[in-house]
Amino acid sequence: MKKTTPLFLLIFVLFLTVSCSEKEVKYEKQPEHPSLILTVQGVKEIRSQLGTVPLFDKTLARTIKIIDVEIAKEISLSTPKDLSGGFSHEQHKNIFLILQQAGVLFQITQDEKYAQYVKEVLLAYAKLYPTLPVHPQTRSYARGKLFWQCLNDSNWLVYSSQAYDCIYEWLTPEDRNILENDLFIPFANFISIENPQFFNRVHNHSTWGNSAVGMIALVMGNDDLLNKALYGIPTDSIDANMKDNDGGFIKTEGQKVGFLANIDEPFSPDGYYTEGPYYQRYAMYPFLIFAQALHNVKPELKIFDHKNGVLLKAVNAILMLTDQDGEFFPLNDGQKGMSIQSRELVTAVDIAYKYGGHNQQLLSIAQEQGKVLLNDSGLAVAKGLRDGKAIPFIKKSYELTDGPEGDQGAVGVLRSGDIEVVFKYSAQGLSHGHYDKLSFSMYNEGNEIIQDYGLVRFVNIEQKGGGNYLKENKTWAKESIAHNTIIQNEKSHFDHKYEIASKNHSTKYIFNTEDLQFQIASAKEENAYPGTELHRTMVLVKDVNNSSPYLLDIMRIQAAEKNQYDLPYYYLGHIMSANFEYETFSQLNILGPKNGYQHLWKKAEGIAQNPNTKISWLNNDKFYSLTTTSDKNDKILFAQIGANDPDFNLRNDPAIIIRRNNFSNTTFATIIEPHGHYSPVSELAKDATSSIENIEIIQSNSKYTVLKITKKDASIKTVFLSNIDSDKNTKHELQINNQKHQWSGPFYYINTKQ
Amino acid sequence: MKKTTPLFLLIFVLFLTVSCSEKEVKYEKQPEHPSLILTVQGVKEIRSQLGTVPLFDKTLARTIKIIDVEIAKEISLSTPKDLSGGFSHEQHKNIFLILQQAGVLFQITQDEKYAQYVKEVLLAYAKLYPTLPVHPQTRSYARGKLFWQCLNDSNWLVYSSQAYDCIYEWLTPEDRNILENDLFIPFANFISIENPQFFNRVHNHSTWGNSAVGMIALVMGNDDLLNKALYGIPTDSIDANMKDNDGGFIKTEGQKVGFLANIDEPFSPDGYYTEGPYYQRYAMYPFLIFAQALHNVKPELKIFDHKNGVLLKAVNAILMLTDQDGEFFPLNDGQKGMSIQSRELVTAVDIAYKYGGHNQQLLSIAQEQGKVLLNDSGLAVAKGLRDGKAIPFIKKSYELTDGPEGDQGAVGVLRSGDIEVVFKYSAQGLSHGHYDKLSFSMYNEGNEIIQDYGLVRFVNIEQKGGGNYLKENKTWAKESIAHNTIIQNEKSHFDHKYEIASKNHSTKYIFNTEDLQFQIASAKEENAYPGTELHRTMVLVKDVNNSSPYLLDIMRIQAAEKNQYDLPYYYLGHIMSANFEYETFSQLNILGPKNGYQHLWKKAEGIAQNPNTKISWLNNDKFYSLTTTSDKNDKILFAQIGANDPDFNLRNDPAIIIRRNNFSNTTFATIIEPHGHYSPVSELAKDATSSIENIEIIQSNSKYTVLKITKKDASIKTVFLSNIDSDKNTKHELQINNQKHQWSGPFYYINTKQ
Repeated sequence: MKKTTPLFLLIFVLFLTVSCSEKEVKYEKQPEHPSLILTVQGVKEIRSQLGTVPLFDKTLARTIKIIDVEIAKEISLSTPKDLSGGFSHEQHKNIFLILQQAGVLFQITQDEKYAQYVKEVLLAYAKLYPTLPVHPQTRSYARGKLFWQCLNDSNWLVYSSQAYDCIYEWLTPEDRNILENDLFIPFANFISIENPQFFNRVHNHSTWGNSAVGMIALVMGNDDLLNKALYGIPTDSIDANMKDNDGGFIKTEGQKVGFLANIDEPFSPDGYYTEGPYYQRYAMYPFLIFAQALHNVKPELKIFDHKNGVLLKAVNAILMLTDQDGEFFPLNDGQKGMSIQSRELVTAVDIAYKYGGHNQQLLSIAQEQGKVLLNDSGLAVAKGLRDGKAIPFIKKSYELTDGPEGDQGAVGVLRSGDIEVVFKYSAQGLSHGHYDKLSFSMYNEGNEIIQDYGLVRFVNIEQKGGGNYLKENKTWAKESIAHNTIIQNEKSHFDHKYEIASKNHSTKYIFNTEDLQFQIASAKEENAYPGTELHRTMVLVKDVNNSSPYLLDIMRIQAAEKNQYDLPYYYLGHIMSANFEYETFSQLNILGPKNGYQHLWKKAEGIAQNPNTKISWLNNDKFYSLTTTSDKNDKILFAQIGANDPDFNLRNDPAIIIRRNNFSNTTFATIIEPHGHYSPVSELAKDATSSIENIEIIQSNSKYTVLKITKKDASIKTVFLSNIDSDKNTKHELQINNQKHQWSGPFYYINTKQ
Repeated sequence: MKKTTPLFLLIFVLFLTVSCSEKEVKYEKQPEHPSLILTVQGVKEIRSQLGTVPLFDKTLARTIKIIDVEIAKEISLSTPKDLSGGFSHEQHKNIFLILQQAGVLFQITQDEKYAQYVKEVLLAYAKLYPTLPVHPQTRSYARGKLFWQCLNDSNWLVYSSQAYDCIYEWLTPEDRNILENDLFIPFANFISIENPQFFNRVHNHSTWGNSAVGMIALVMGNDDLLNKALYGIPTDSIDANMKDNDGGFIKTEGQKVGFLANIDEPFSPDGYYTEGPYYQRYAMYPFLIFAQALHNVKPELKIFDHKNGVLLKAVNAILMLTDQDGEFFPLNDGQKGMSIQSRELVTAVDIAYKYGGHNQQLLSIAQEQGKVLLNDSGLAVAKGLRDGKAIPFIKKSYELTDGPEGDQGAVGVLRSGDIEVVFKYSAQGLSHGHYDKLSFSMYNEGNEIIQDYGLVRFVNIEQKGGGNYLKENKTWAKESIAHNTIIQNEKSHFDHKYEIASKNHSTKYIFNTEDLQFQIASAKEENAYPGTELHRTMVLVKDVNNSSPYLLDIMRIQAAEKNQYDLPYYYLGHIMSANFEYETFSQLNILGPKNGYQHLWKKAEGIAQNPNTKISWLNNDKFYSLTTTSDKNDKILFAQIGANDPDFNLRNDPAIIIRRNNFSNTTFATIIEPHGHYSPVSELAKDATSSIENIEIIQSNSKYTVLKITKKDASIKTVFLSNIDSDKNTKHELQINNQKHQWSGPFYYINTKQ
């Protein structure tokens, strides 16, 4: 962890105006209150419907129960001193969540005890805040005052401004005066003009900062702050080489900033957020809550139409990036277990329903969530559910492009039956990106079969490095070897250099899921290793019988020089069998000295003895097999995560690594199949062994790859791929074993019987 | 695995009659049919109730659906050749299950297609059987003909005799003649007189053999076979030194044999089966199904009253040995996941309900099972459920004595809230016993917190050693170091010698659960290590506040010489923190050369720096801490299972091992507490750190142990244990720090505040 210095807090602000074509926002008249997430009209409707909308009523009752307990407690604001998970951090975090809910309860129930509570707490903050120095913890590149980073201070303001909005009219002008001058305005200034390196970026941190300042500006009717929120601080002088704690650059030349730029840049036209779903979830709350407020107060901005309605598309996108259990795929930095149950997703789904044309599929998600927002959006959802309008949310195979213009690769999700495959051929994902071009993960019934490691962090668990990113996030989780992708000569993609990685992206080649028996995604990566072209194709095959879909994974490499290639598969489960001899060791050594290899124990090693290497395992009472084409010199390694891990920060999960050395051009063709199950109650094992007899590469070169898959039921599938032309209309002709094959488009297959 | 030889198949049978006081059974008249699990009267009642008893009707409909598919298939009996999990094994196993159900369906529906199916299949067996040699697989000490061991042949006969009973009256005398002379009688003879080493034992194998022969005897009205089933073969000449494949002796001098002896011996008066719950479950089926048949055909035997009704008590006992999810505690050889959902437990629960006085608590278990037997018992249960008679089955704290007279130690289960602690101070458990005196395991909400490893076997998964016991079951799972108990000088209890272990047992000392705030179980072991007395006390403490119950574990050792003691805790989860410095290694080595230590990797090692060693971990989103009194020279080891495991047969689970060297007398006092939880959705950690400030041993000697536990809320609990007198009425007086304490009985505690 780099030590932060107070230097960047003393940035010399150049008073140059940035040329900007944005329309400035001006207040014609003071806004009415509430107007952010509740409206005067909305509150009337909510009150008139109380008792008739079950899910709304249930959420309200539950909220009253919780908040009544909280507001009965004596509160003494603690002096900020802790990192995430510590007492002062958790107290101030808890309070802003309560404030927001208490404010809403005042509007809905009109019980003044809630207003009184909000007032007292905010006045206490108005006393405390002016006395606060910058937070004593020095870990962040942008330290806050209440919290160790401006990010959490911004969280506080996003929530507290809603509470203030709810009691605004109830307060005396004197109280409002105190709150605005002693608390809200200095607070907003601190996280904006006093921390431009935090506020003036395209990053989820800035989205929170922009929204925080914008929300309080809307309550106060403050044009100046609102314009800063929307368009950034006109002038800053952030050093072009400055980086944040995650290693991301603060500034990009010519970069627009502010809330609107934060919509334009990280979201692709499909609504994919380049940092990945975990951070998309985190950012969705300020994006949508501020958008809802802007919609109410500044309808002329047409915020929900911005960039072709990308904010609403983003809600659909993030739902598509969840597994069958509603948990997000942990692309890039992502903590596993985060799901549609999060409060951010409740907000996202409700707002998307209300402002996105009442998509009935969203109602079934809301039903799973079991709660709604206590506002106009939540009421709309609860009414939709009450009226039986919910229809299932269909998670289908889906490609989400990356990049502001949608031309920086994509994430492809293939789905068939209970199998989901997530294939990543996107851009770097800013500072939360991992170095894992063309990596993938695989799920069965919502359980990980081939896992993506996710991040190395225990968010908000103080014992674990203050709940922050742990050093193994960089030395392990971001490295290429931590992922299910190819590693050349034991070096990470782009040599783990953010400067290079952030300027490149993979290239979409094929995404075609029309044929449910043969759903295909294919992409290329030409920059991860200079001089080497990586081309990976994933096909989710569903044969017309009772068997489960299986994944065909073709990794073709074309390189200028001979290299060593490692292809890891982070399976989860217990090894059942392997069709080759291997050696286990009486002493365990690390797999390599650096680039993540230092975190892997080498448990066993063998040489591929057969044209196909096959390994089977049992996971969660289901059987799986990996069958891969082998060169006779291929090494097969069994590895386990956890070496060089002095603080036990890593999970000790296993991997199979296929190692091929001394090749320039080569192709790995691998099948991963679920094929049976075991009951520990009946003790019956069904289909415990692989259904694949053989997989063979008939040909693989720069032009074509042709594979033959033979199953034990004697069925044969021959697969043809064009490697240079993805045009659907191109006609191909290929002679294989004296037989001429003709087809159109980049892929083709034939089913035959032996 | 020892090679079996055909020698013991050629046993010279000495024609000496065994002196026996058993009353011989004689048939006065031929029995009516069906009479085993269905009765003529019962079938009438079932048919009259069809359509009115929901769970019975549902089970019937499901069974018809399954069996109709099965009987429509062409069957060609395969030549026996495979081990468990292989094709021929699974086919013949599947068939006997179908035969039994088809027989029952014939009786209930009176659709002759079922009778026809049973007849055809049995006649096919009558053709096949006389041609069969002994099974070609040589692994068993008692090879079968259809299967690799007589055990499975017996399974076949237990089920098939029920099928035969169901169609007996429907068959022609000619068919019956063929079936009995070509199939059933030779079959029964083979597993009895031709395999006395299998049939004439006290062992679950023999229970199956006895029941199989007895069941078919009852159908045929065959006195001779029935008497053999009940009382064993009068004469055998089994070598006194002969052992089975698991290392258990075949014969014990003066041992009674046969079905009744198999009730008398392995069951304690409380209904605990000495092999442990996994094998109790396995044996329950033949015990109860044959008992039910005897009850119907030979009511004069009063089988359900035998040994004070132990068969019915055994059903209650095995239910008490399940966790909150209904899964059996894996004491001794036990495969995890086996549960009340097994077909054996459906049988057990239904029969116990019908013949054990209609215990309404059993109905709630039947409801969880979701199915009933398609016979008189099942009808009774389904009617009870229909009539709303189910009440919850209360799993309480419970002690189950071991040994035929209940004087060979016990298993104690302590329960409080969602916490369950299983403490083992029993006899060896025959050949399936592990060398783990005074070991324990701990559960929270049905999940393992401190695990017992269970067995090393993947039952019926052919890839894993034919689905049989793997060699690591002996080299790892049975060894003491594989368990949560004390290991002296890196040697297993009884030096892993069955001959010695089977002659000894631990001794009950205290089991008192009257005070729900202080439930205590205490036991001693004086023979595991000659010259060393082990005395372990487990207290499940529930303080009067919101906190979770915690386990206080006191292991007191009194030894003639100075030794090294290892005390492992097989926690499950991810380490959060440790309060001492430790070294991790760049190379992993095994913990020791033998006695199970060769299967452990030493991942880290530290020296206890504080009077208390504390380690916290996160498991399944819940926090746990272990706090233990340390000597300043104690080593703390972090280990992982999986070394010397060439076939990947072991799970790679972690352990904490406390190592104390150079002590003769010493006491370990340890607290294991669940204390908080984490939500990966809200990312909030609640009570992430231990609530224990300190635990201190004030005094521990041969007479008394006194402990002081201080919690972070400043509450203090002082615990007093008498180590030599467990009498409830004995008065004790002890001076501690100038304060005199007086109490009655073996334990006492005082709560104070700091």
